[in-house]
Amino acid sequence: MPSKNNYSDKPALDYVFHPRSIVVAGVSTDTTRLNFGRILLESLISAEFKGKIYPVNPSGDEVFGLKIYPSIKDIPQTVDYVISAIPAQYTPQLIADCAAKGVKVVHFFTAGFSETGTEEGRQLEWQIASTARQNGIRIIGPNCMGVYCPKTGLTFCPDFPKETGSVGYIAQSGGNSIYSVREAAMRGIRFSKVVSYGNACDLSETDFLEYLSQDPETKIITAYIEGVKDGQRFSKVLRQAARVKPVIIFKGGTTQIGAKTVASHTSAIAGSETIWRSLLRQAGAIQVDSLDELFDVALAVNYMSPPHGRNVALIGLGGGASVQAADACSNAGLALPPFPLEIRQRLKDIIGLEAGNIFNNPLDLYHRNRQEILEEAIKVIANYEQIELLIIHIPFDALIITPRWGANQYIEAIINLGEQINKRTTIVLEFVAKTESKQIASEAQLTLYKAGFPVYPSVRRAANAISKLIQYHHWQQRQYS
Amino acid sequence: MPSKNNYSDKPALDYVFHPRSIVVAGVSTDTTRLNFGRILLESLISAEFKGKIYPVNPSGDEVFGLKIYPSIKDIPQTVDYVISAIPAQYTPQLIADCAAKGVKVVHFFTAGFSETGTEEGRQLEWQIASTARQNGIRIIGPNCMGVYCPKTGLTFCPDFPKETGSVGYIAQSGGNSIYSVREAAMRGIRFSKVVSYGNACDLSETDFLEYLSQDPETKIITAYIEGVKDGQRFSKVLRQAARVKPVIIFKGGTTQIGAKTVASHTSAIAGSETIWRSLLRQAGAIQVDSLDELFDVALAVNYMSPPHGRNVALIGLGGGASVQAADACSNAGLALPPFPLEIRQRLKDIIGLEAGNIFNNPLDLYHRNRQEILEEAIKVIANYEQIELLIIHIPFDALIITPRWGANQYIEAIINLGEQINKRTTIVLEFVAKTESKQIASEAQLTLYKAGFPVYPSVRRAANAISKLIQYHHWQQRQYS
Repeated sequence: MPSKNNYSDKPALDYVFHPRSIVVAGVSTDTTRLNFGRILLESLISAEFKGKIYPVNPSGDEVFGLKIYPSIKDIPQTVDYVISAIPAQYTPQLIADCAAKGVKVVHFFTAGFSETGTEEGRQLEWQIASTARQNGIRIIGPNCMGVYCPKTGLTFCPDFPKETGSVGYIAQSGGNSIYSVREAAMRGIRFSKVVSYGNACDLSETDFLEYLSQDPETKIITAYIEGVKDGQRFSKVLRQAARVKPVIIFKGGTTQIGAKTVASHTSAIAGSETIWRSLLRQAGAIQVDSLDELFDVALAVNYMSPPHGRNVALIGLGGGASVQAADACSNAGLALPPFPLEIRQRLKDIIGLEAGNIFNNPLDLYHRNRQEILEEAIKVIANYEQIELLIIHIPFDALIITPRWGANQYIEAIINLGEQINKRTTIVLEFVAKTESKQIASEAQLTLYKAGFPVYPSVRRAANAISKLIQYHHWQQRQYS
Repeated sequence: MPSKNNYSDKPALDYVFHPRSIVVAGVSTDTTRLNFGRILLESLISAEFKGKIYPVNPSGDEVFGLKIYPSIKDIPQTVDYVISAIPAQYTPQLIADCAAKGVKVVHFFTAGFSETGTEEGRQLEWQIASTARQNGIRIIGPNCMGVYCPKTGLTFCPDFPKETGSVGYIAQSGGNSIYSVREAAMRGIRFSKVVSYGNACDLSETDFLEYLSQDPETKIITAYIEGVKDGQRFSKVLRQAARVKPVIIFKGGTTQIGAKTVASHTSAIAGSETIWRSLLRQAGAIQVDSLDELFDVALAVNYMSPPHGRNVALIGLGGGASVQAADACSNAGLALPPFPLEIRQRLKDIIGLEAGNIFNNPLDLYHRNRQEILEEAIKVIANYEQIELLIIHIPFDALIITPRWGANQYIEAIINLGEQINKRTTIVLEFVAKTESKQIASEAQLTLYKAGFPVYPSVRRAANAISKLIQYHHWQQRQYS
């Protein structure tokens, strides 16, 4: 493995995310076959990439109104960045052409290197990395999706959001990076930079972590990591990063069989789970155990003010749902202090005395879901000084009749309260059962995140995210007080 | 609290589920206001209830083409079953009328009894229960949804499936019973009988558990329980039930604050979590910790043959997804034995040598998703004698381009294999991110469960359900060998 180049400027790798011109090598005009070169090219065009785009294929021709060059060397202008979607056996020629052309960054979408577990694959990876190093070219990959940077229009998927955001994401897995951006986008997260870096034969998770920690556009760092190549350097960079921004990490390959799968996926060494856990804890990174949890926590960090205590008020509908929600909060280490008599009396006055309602914490508002009532009740609870956080739980599918009207009453009450409560309120929309309620929830989620409210699919997941946010905040206070 | 009547026939409470005529008391003709009497009546009509239906309201009139009687006593025919949707204060009169009319069962949808925590509420509940007992009337509730029995057309929700099934469900919470039937229905579960029993002032979880254990139409018993009134009897009945059928129980109110919420929800005593856990374990019931898990496990028990060992083959797409799936299986105690050289060679021959694929367990088929290839590959793995179970993992949203074509290749391959593999295969459709893929997954889920395949939304949940199925099977073997 070639040693790393050393770029000492700050943030050193900024040019990787801001190429002035891009080549996509391996673009086919044959629309009857799946061709990733064409998909990647189309993605750049639809993301309105800010620089020049040059498709390359030995057979020439034209695609999407762009001339296809037979070789990189035939392009008359300078080329900053090359995306390789050609078969692995042609990559040594490609990297030689890139060197001749003065290319700065090559992203190898191409797979078939060390992850195959063959001597041939390892050799080929060593060869391209070595040529790159000798010519000052940085490599992303091979065997990965590359970079998504909405600000410059760099992307690898035609349906990713065009808006930029403040969350950075480093993903060893290509599929995970695609899934994650889509899922996070639905939930109101927008990204500054996303990198899927695969086998990491040159630029690694550590390089990108260092970059994101220095990048002023990135406020929160998230990562899916299968293994690191230089544990000591990673540990050092992680400590530095966690000191300046929240760093949330999901480590894949924590079991023996998972670790074995890691080896054939990205050729990385997964490392022991125990070592990882203590490394992350000591560095002050937030540890999570799934992709869902990764963005659950990112959402809380992104939308909410860090609370000092653990006192939550739970407003919901349905007795059974309230019981389960109370259990979920309690299991996540949150407290649900009972409301004093005065608050309960005010709630009774607002809601009206009706049997079957619980005028306490959790507050059950089943069948009392008129907007004005909800708004007033939420306001009373939000103004009660013992309460730091609100969870508003709307389980659509527990209602007998079509829930659109009821859901809208809730959503409008919450939207009206808006900035009065959004920095300390999470909304739970449960919508797994009915097709209709799934649609209502999708629309509501969009409305709510635009108003600054994080939305979760269950109280359990919301409570867990809040709990991790509090833990992180307490860790920070211990560090800097 | 009045003592229970003793019905010794077997199954003693069968008449509760087979009334010949029903009264819905509290039906309003005013369509500008939410009226649960009308909704419950409409539900019975749309479920094509097999007997006579009589709406009752002091003001008379007509609704859905049915004459509204001012009182139960005005109905010229016999009445077996009464649904009360009237305010609590009128229920003593109603139960007196029921006694005069010779009614056998009253379901009190009406709330406002002991769950309010007031002396008045407790008194009222005691009063109706006492009158009922003196007149041989059985009570379901109060403060609950009642009975859903698709075979007779008894129901409490207009959108519940009309088809009958083999799963019985006992739910202390009304909202939970509604949510559960909908969610389970989407996943291919059909019910024999569902009872939401609320405060259980007469008929309790134990009565219904005993009934379901003797009911030949019920093959699997599921339950959401907040607390029991007679622990000893419950424990005895549970042992008997678990001896003859799988019994899956979700206990709500396991935390202190959850238990407090239970008290104001259904006035039940939640009991200590430790006692519950050991009670369920000793009885041989399957314990779960959420409603989702309740039906995850019911699905596995319902669709799959119990496996003897823990050897699973994982077929999926995407390296990162495979790593996480392998971790999930391993954490659930499942084994992923590596394929021998011969199987790997046969897979290579079928799939074609392509870089980036993993020819082992898990088998990563990213981008090799033509139906014929998938079908052949699955067949080779299913026929490998070391493998007892298959998990086929299709994470739609990890694919770059629109997944309908790719998804269909998978679904068709699985459907073609059908009965050759369905008793030992679970399908995982991951579809949380994109609206389009949610729809594809909903359609695919329907197709798959009709072909006998249980579908899960994540490998984690599938692996957990399989693991619980294996545990249960091993417990059974120890008992009866």
